[in-house]
Amino acid sequence: MKFADSNDHAASDAASADASDAASADADSSGLVSDGGTDRTTPTQTTETLLNPNPLTDLEEVQLLDTTLRDGEQMPGVSLTPADKVDVARELDAAGVHVIEAGSACTSEGEREGIRRVAGEGLDATVTSFARGVESDIDRALDCDVDGVNLVVPASDKHVETKVGSSREEVVETTVELVEYATDHDLWVEVLGEDGSRADLDYLERLMSAGLDAGADRVCYCDTVGAAGPERTAEIVSRLADLGPTSLHTHDDLGFGVANVHAGLKAGADTVHGTVLGVGERAGNVALEEVAIALDRCYDVDTVDVGRLYRLCRRVSEVTGVAIPPNKSVCGANAFAHESGIHTDGTLKDGTMYEPYPPETVGRERRLVLGKHAGRAGVAAALADHGVDVDDDELGEVVARVKELGDRGKRVTDADLLAITEDVQGRERDRHVELVDLSATSGGNLPTASVRLRVGDEERVASGTGSGPVDAGLEAVRAALADESGGVDAVSFELDSYHVDAITGGTDAVVTVAVDLSRGDRSVSVSASDADITRASVVAMVDALDRLSELGGDESEKEDADGASTSTPVGSADD
Amino acid sequence: MKFADSNDHAASDAASADASDAASADADSSGLVSDGGTDRTTPTQTTETLLNPNPLTDLEEVQLLDTTLRDGEQMPGVSLTPADKVDVARELDAAGVHVIEAGSACTSEGEREGIRRVAGEGLDATVTSFARGVESDIDRALDCDVDGVNLVVPASDKHVETKVGSSREEVVETTVELVEYATDHDLWVEVLGEDGSRADLDYLERLMSAGLDAGADRVCYCDTVGAAGPERTAEIVSRLADLGPTSLHTHDDLGFGVANVHAGLKAGADTVHGTVLGVGERAGNVALEEVAIALDRCYDVDTVDVGRLYRLCRRVSEVTGVAIPPNKSVCGANAFAHESGIHTDGTLKDGTMYEPYPPETVGRERRLVLGKHAGRAGVAAALADHGVDVDDDELGEVVARVKELGDRGKRVTDADLLAITEDVQGRERDRHVELVDLSATSGGNLPTASVRLRVGDEERVASGTGSGPVDAGLEAVRAALADESGGVDAVSFELDSYHVDAITGGTDAVVTVAVDLSRGDRSVSVSASDADITRASVVAMVDALDRLSELGGDESEKEDADGASTSTPVGSADD
Repeated sequence: MKFADSNDHAASDAASADASDAASADADSSGLVSDGGTDRTTPTQTTETLLNPNPLTDLEEVQLLDTTLRDGEQMPGVSLTPADKVDVARELDAAGVHVIEAGSACTSEGEREGIRRVAGEGLDATVTSFARGVESDIDRALDCDVDGVNLVVPASDKHVETKVGSSREEVVETTVELVEYATDHDLWVEVLGEDGSRADLDYLERLMSAGLDAGADRVCYCDTVGAAGPERTAEIVSRLADLGPTSLHTHDDLGFGVANVHAGLKAGADTVHGTVLGVGERAGNVALEEVAIALDRCYDVDTVDVGRLYRLCRRVSEVTGVAIPPNKSVCGANAFAHESGIHTDGTLKDGTMYEPYPPETVGRERRLVLGKHAGRAGVAAALADHGVDVDDDELGEVVARVKELGDRGKRVTDADLLAITEDVQGRERDRHVELVDLSATSGGNLPTASVRLRVGDEERVASGTGSGPVDAGLEAVRAALADESGGVDAVSFELDSYHVDAITGGTDAVVTVAVDLSRGDRSVSVSASDADITRASVVAMVDALDRLSELGGDESEKEDADGASTSTPVGSADD
Repeated sequence: MKFADSNDHAASDAASADASDAASADADSSGLVSDGGTDRTTPTQTTETLLNPNPLTDLEEVQLLDTTLRDGEQMPGVSLTPADKVDVARELDAAGVHVIEAGSACTSEGEREGIRRVAGEGLDATVTSFARGVESDIDRALDCDVDGVNLVVPASDKHVETKVGSSREEVVETTVELVEYATDHDLWVEVLGEDGSRADLDYLERLMSAGLDAGADRVCYCDTVGAAGPERTAEIVSRLADLGPTSLHTHDDLGFGVANVHAGLKAGADTVHGTVLGVGERAGNVALEEVAIALDRCYDVDTVDVGRLYRLCRRVSEVTGVAIPPNKSVCGANAFAHESGIHTDGTLKDGTMYEPYPPETVGRERRLVLGKHAGRAGVAAALADHGVDVDDDELGEVVARVKELGDRGKRVTDADLLAITEDVQGRERDRHVELVDLSATSGGNLPTASVRLRVGDEERVASGTGSGPVDAGLEAVRAALADESGGVDAVSFELDSYHVDAITGGTDAVVTVAVDLSRGDRSVSVSASDADITRASVVAMVDALDRLSELGGDESEKEDADGASTSTPVGSADD
């Protein structure tokens, strides 16, 4: 469920109770839990003063180089089409990313097409291609009309000797030739010392120095394998930054991606390589959105427009197919969600109580959810959101039952909350819509489903076809609810979201389907589980419809006035 | 696909080619790309010397307090049963976690049952409960027979005044009383100053000092809302560590979870709170596995048995339902996977080329995968793994085609690689097993499917029932392949893994099904996409069987000798 962002506090009037569970509400009054009796203060969304006044760097702005389209795309299983690359590059440019590494021109013709199209977009950002230490790679980059190249040359002995079978001296010579070749062709050049974190520092310094002397615009400290800690990073970067403008390229294998960026900026670097969502080789690159928000919130250092970070993350998730983890900073579904009673109660009093910064900062909203850690304030606010009144005793009982359901390992949806409340209040509720029979065929050319629903006092039978058994089931339900005469008995609805968690294991795994359905301005969340995905899906939809019909009865005039009772198309929606 | 871990390098003899694509293989020979002509060195898996010799802390061991079962469980949507808690606690104890915060006794009776059971397991770890600043919470913890409590009291003015409606003085008094109450009852006590990172430091020092004077065993610096950077963390922790033993409780809202642990240990803390997978409120707590591996690899500081980290992460993912992101350090599917030509080539030469530490360190294996960034070395190794010989020209063409397929945004499975190779070699291949017709019914009580397969020269029709349409489809395929006479014509197989990515959006979304099937010691990966999940699943299975039948032809004697041709049950398996 998703209810009332913090500025919409009408609900909290009904919620003047504390976060503790029913039994502890009347506990030791001298204790340090909310007494629920204080007046609510208006939630303050003002930016907190910086906790840390120490400057991280002399710079007011740190440049970001985004390598989502290159290092990010090297993530196994990820492959972006030229159109995907253009989409992401536009978003990056709109956010104000300084350099976009659009790909690696040597990879394939499709890749070159993608880079060429990004370079041709007329973006504000500098558009570059990755190039290995061979002239032909630079030629291919030139062929894509990029502004510059990220020229990678081996820096550690392991890479110099074992990987490319060369010598330190040879690598320096080739690097100088290639930098001159690239700058002769008017390319912006960044020289990356591959595996620099494991290199001999005197040699790395000599190599990078030679690159700068040959005309490179900047050098890059590369922790290619994610092996360094902050001390090693600081040691190397401080030496490189003495030579010229220095970038940081860090990976998260040891969880030190952000820590090494912090150490490197402190040591004198001025540019950070990152990828959206931290996609990339192995454990991924440092996440661009984390670098941006950390520099903004802790040091007041500008990078990109943080207000666009969330949509940027969603876009990259869509094109790469990499799901956003719920507990991911900035963009995870839970980053601004609160379930536990203590947190929900505190948040209802003051939005900043349990958040480091307002969700609107990154283009998001707060969410309150119910589960085993629910408290009175959160449950009361949720019930108010559904227009249900309860007295204090009833609220205590509802909270206990919500927690009991959560205890059994279940997510508590709107439907669960309403069913519990009816039971507690002894309200007998007739189902408005009920699934009597369901059958679906699939596997062939025309997936088909039929349903028998009880709607009020009558039974309705209908069938439908779709792209699969679930889609056909939805069409059958929709057909059964359409009134033949087109009159007011028709029940229209919109499927705002249909979600099935990843299925892993055997073909007999239990599948949990979560749906959000809406009618006019009312919406309801329901989930259902079954080893049969068709059944779980249709049961969830019918249960949601049943709840909406009930709400719709109260709201019918309003909905008619809104014109919202006409059928609206099934669409996909976000969370 | 998953082939040859690094110690099994027979395959690489066939792979003496470089990582560049076909066209660049003969590029500028003075360039810095692999020349493919050097002898392979035996992969070295020895531990690298520490990159950073600076000590982080005076301690040889840092204690870990795991709060997966408390702060982790407060993650919206996560709810653990008592049995889940016991399972996870056993794994944590086996790994050597020092303190296990088993839950919050005030939450519910189910929660208390879980804590009680963990406390009763006789673990080596100290088992604790979270307790708010009220005596009744300590009583409830006592009722669960825990060894200690994590007593949380408000530290910032926002929490002191707005949340609990108290005053600084009152909070100090109550804290002293509660610490005395707890220690009188022989509890180990850690005092947590909630929202400490946003507190007035002089007051925080006074509050924590009072707790220690009253008999608390240690205090904890809490960055409850994940708002602090490393400088603020160091400033506060250095003051607390002067008072007594200090723990760190950090969150990842700004991506600073690990960086703040680093700063806090350097400032004198000796214990770290973390959760497995970084589950927890909002963006989650710092990930325990990242702290453990970072301290081990960068500073040679002991925490827990890192060899058990991967199984620990998997167990927590299973019980919480939180998927492990592919790009998660230590435990992500890609943490030790390599797709790009450069990385695969380098890794085949030396396992440490593109990894910070050997995957076996955390109980894992290396994986090589194919895609648009594939190179000759990786493709040659994959073909060798399937027993397919190609000459140099053919290899070049196969690599180009693999990359072309990857370019179109597709994952390249074993079946794709083999089909491309046959085509390149002009081999006409008759399908051994082919799907002619498929029909499944679902939604009712008995999901049923029927298939018509062409197996060699004959058509076989069979049906089966299952828990859903896909499961029924699998049974129908299995029945069709079982030879009625039980003779050698029976085609047995094992479904090692069945995976469907999360479905989000509408009911008409295209679903991609990935299956791994094996027969004896041969296995094959295949994926198929369709808006009809039944069709995608059965098509993938039949395609995989077709490939296995072919391999099986070559291997039939061997398989018979192994006794592997008898039917084995469908099972779930890992990645």
